[in-house]
Amino acid sequence: MEKINIGLIGLGTVGSGVLEMISNNQDKISNITGRELIIKTIVVRNVAKHREEVADDILLTDDVNDVINDPDIKIAVEVMGGINPAKQIITDLLNAHKHVVTANKDLIASHGDELAKIAHKNTADLVYEASVAGGIPILRTIVNSFAADEILEVKGIVNGTTNYILTQMQQKSWSYEDALKKAQELGFAESDPTNDVAGIDATYKMIILSQFSFGSHIALEDINIEGIQNIKLEDVTQAAKFGYTIKLLGIATRVGNGIFAEVAPVLVPSDHPLATIHNENNAVMVTGQAVGETLFYGPGAGGLPTANSVLSDIVSVTKNIVLGTTGNTFNNYQHESEPIDKSNVIYPYYLSLQMKDIPGQILKVTKLMTELGASFSQIVQTKANDTEARVIFITHSMSKDQLKTLKEEIAKFDSISLNAAYKVLEN
Amino acid sequence: MEKINIGLIGLGTVGSGVLEMISNNQDKISNITGRELIIKTIVVRNVAKHREEVADDILLTDDVNDVINDPDIKIAVEVMGGINPAKQIITDLLNAHKHVVTANKDLIASHGDELAKIAHKNTADLVYEASVAGGIPILRTIVNSFAADEILEVKGIVNGTTNYILTQMQQKSWSYEDALKKAQELGFAESDPTNDVAGIDATYKMIILSQFSFGSHIALEDINIEGIQNIKLEDVTQAAKFGYTIKLLGIATRVGNGIFAEVAPVLVPSDHPLATIHNENNAVMVTGQAVGETLFYGPGAGGLPTANSVLSDIVSVTKNIVLGTTGNTFNNYQHESEPIDKSNVIYPYYLSLQMKDIPGQILKVTKLMTELGASFSQIVQTKANDTEARVIFITHSMSKDQLKTLKEEIAKFDSISLNAAYKVLEN
Repeated sequence: MEKINIGLIGLGTVGSGVLEMISNNQDKISNITGRELIIKTIVVRNVAKHREEVADDILLTDDVNDVINDPDIKIAVEVMGGINPAKQIITDLLNAHKHVVTANKDLIASHGDELAKIAHKNTADLVYEASVAGGIPILRTIVNSFAADEILEVKGIVNGTTNYILTQMQQKSWSYEDALKKAQELGFAESDPTNDVAGIDATYKMIILSQFSFGSHIALEDINIEGIQNIKLEDVTQAAKFGYTIKLLGIATRVGNGIFAEVAPVLVPSDHPLATIHNENNAVMVTGQAVGETLFYGPGAGGLPTANSVLSDIVSVTKNIVLGTTGNTFNNYQHESEPIDKSNVIYPYYLSLQMKDIPGQILKVTKLMTELGASFSQIVQTKANDTEARVIFITHSMSKDQLKTLKEEIAKFDSISLNAAYKVLEN
Repeated sequence: MEKINIGLIGLGTVGSGVLEMISNNQDKISNITGRELIIKTIVVRNVAKHREEVADDILLTDDVNDVINDPDIKIAVEVMGGINPAKQIITDLLNAHKHVVTANKDLIASHGDELAKIAHKNTADLVYEASVAGGIPILRTIVNSFAADEILEVKGIVNGTTNYILTQMQQKSWSYEDALKKAQELGFAESDPTNDVAGIDATYKMIILSQFSFGSHIALEDINIEGIQNIKLEDVTQAAKFGYTIKLLGIATRVGNGIFAEVAPVLVPSDHPLATIHNENNAVMVTGQAVGETLFYGPGAGGLPTANSVLSDIVSVTKNIVLGTTGNTFNNYQHESEPIDKSNVIYPYYLSLQMKDIPGQILKVTKLMTELGASFSQIVQTKANDTEARVIFITHSMSKDQLKTLKEEIAKFDSISLNAAYKVLEN
């Protein structure tokens, strides 16, 4: 059987998973593609450290040129991560007419369009299923199965670390700090968790999901990003009493001929499918004009699940090599988006305020709301401490502009402070 | 822009959805495929009845030869349903070198392999995403995204009618008969609902899902099939008290080098993702050796959702036409399965027995179980009527053979009858 040689760049959790899966599932892969896949070369930073893990017939090297300059290697798999030097390496690989499979969401979200052009110019494939939601095959599904439908919204839980923390806060009544510590102990959170807990990782994934769903690139600076660092256990508990579960959601919605995108904590109705996604799992909900609501659920990270997405890319590239159809862009839908009017983006909000426990405070807030043309659907008052009350409001739908003005006006009061303002998803 | 002409055979709910989607989403389809899709001809039984629905530039005919013999038509879409005459029509279309898109699960489950060979011989595509779980893009996802993984199990709710009935029984405390009547009023069940409620429809879908997941054809007669017609409200209620939701599940599991497949009512833990699939929705859970558990959820039927799957097939075929890569079989994984030893298939069971309310009855059953080497984890006794008790057991895992013997032995007692025996899914 004809062989296809692969160069693997990076041998961390995902790289090891790719190595394991290719060796375990060679029969099925050959059955489907008619080719034998061979890992010929592996590039690592420290050769000595990985010597034991790698079979002797594989070239283990610290020089990426051993892949770039090897005419026998057809497919390069980049699982080293980070933007530099990965960007230059992938550029060089594509210019050397290698097909590239990558799991690098930061790079694809930031420079995907540029790299896709280089790939196309070289009749090379550039695919990156594993860059979003690890084990969930969402990108290829959007390409193949929503090709004729208009996607109205794509939203989901696309970061496992934050979902693990929020699940533990809810189920165990832990504080954010305790849940984060546990996540770090279990390896679900890094020692510097900022990229995850501040919502950056989820935002990169939403940029890629939006490109596939709407055909347009949204710049990082056009996305509202709020992390989970300030979520208090009392808010998780209070949300549950109202019938909601707090989740870090990425939401990208078509508004007119534009797209509104946001990553933020959201109160999700407890019987909504997204509320039932626990721990490190991910889920992406795609709403199509014709098909309605669909949901794709699976492991968001982990070596083997992510490796499975890498392998599905490798098999796809292999089929293209066999059929002579390489060089087509992974996301082939292009559509110009217009700037949106944010006053059209309306949601109910969960507002948590702390105020001096003296008469007239709630009146101040309700007066403000009335002046803004907004209103409440639920109010609960509890004791915050000896001299202050905690008052929780769930509002009717209001715009971002209304919310902004409300926040500015509340900031002017000495006796009232706004501790939290989270979107509420309706069923 | 180059045009691709399509012949549409059938203009029911799905056919009308296809017509509507092609006209509404022409821009996006052209953007992706570089081709304009034209419905040139529509074949219906009664031309007069449909005249008003169809634009004048489309040929509306009752003669399928107007598609088969038209050299300008490249793709035929069969949405008439049923095995005859659909089988002959699709054979003729393929032999006339038309690519065929069909939503016909009965036909594909029964004669899919034979038709795939005819398609391949004619370098024609034969694709049928819409045949399983209407709006859920599950077949193409298995082909593309599980290509390198070994699928261990595929299970799910693949019939919307029965899921609607069971959801209503649980949520409204309706009897089976009342829920069925309501489903018929709303159009979720046909006037003769046998095909749905007896599990036949779900079985056809499981046959197709198994072919894609395991590469092997399972014959209808090798599948245990049990419908929902005998489910009592009291069992739905009792299951809920134990923490379970009764769902009609199709399950196909790899056992050694064979496959065990079954369609039957199953007690699903209430916090399991499949328990949260309500009403007419469908969901398919695929468990891969590497990827773990993934779930795909969406509308199981309906004109537009199903039409979306048909359109994803049309777009896929169009891409193949453009790339010159037609004639590859939709499911390209072939793997010989061996007969399985059913004693290896073990589940806990929910058993509902009715027995004379006199001493020693439960003892008889527990003695039987002990002789079989099986045991119980939960027992609840309630009053059935003045002289009889209802006793519900949840067993520990036992084999099909043990269950069969148990049923046979219980049948020998005059004073005890077995009203229900349902599998229990563990989390």
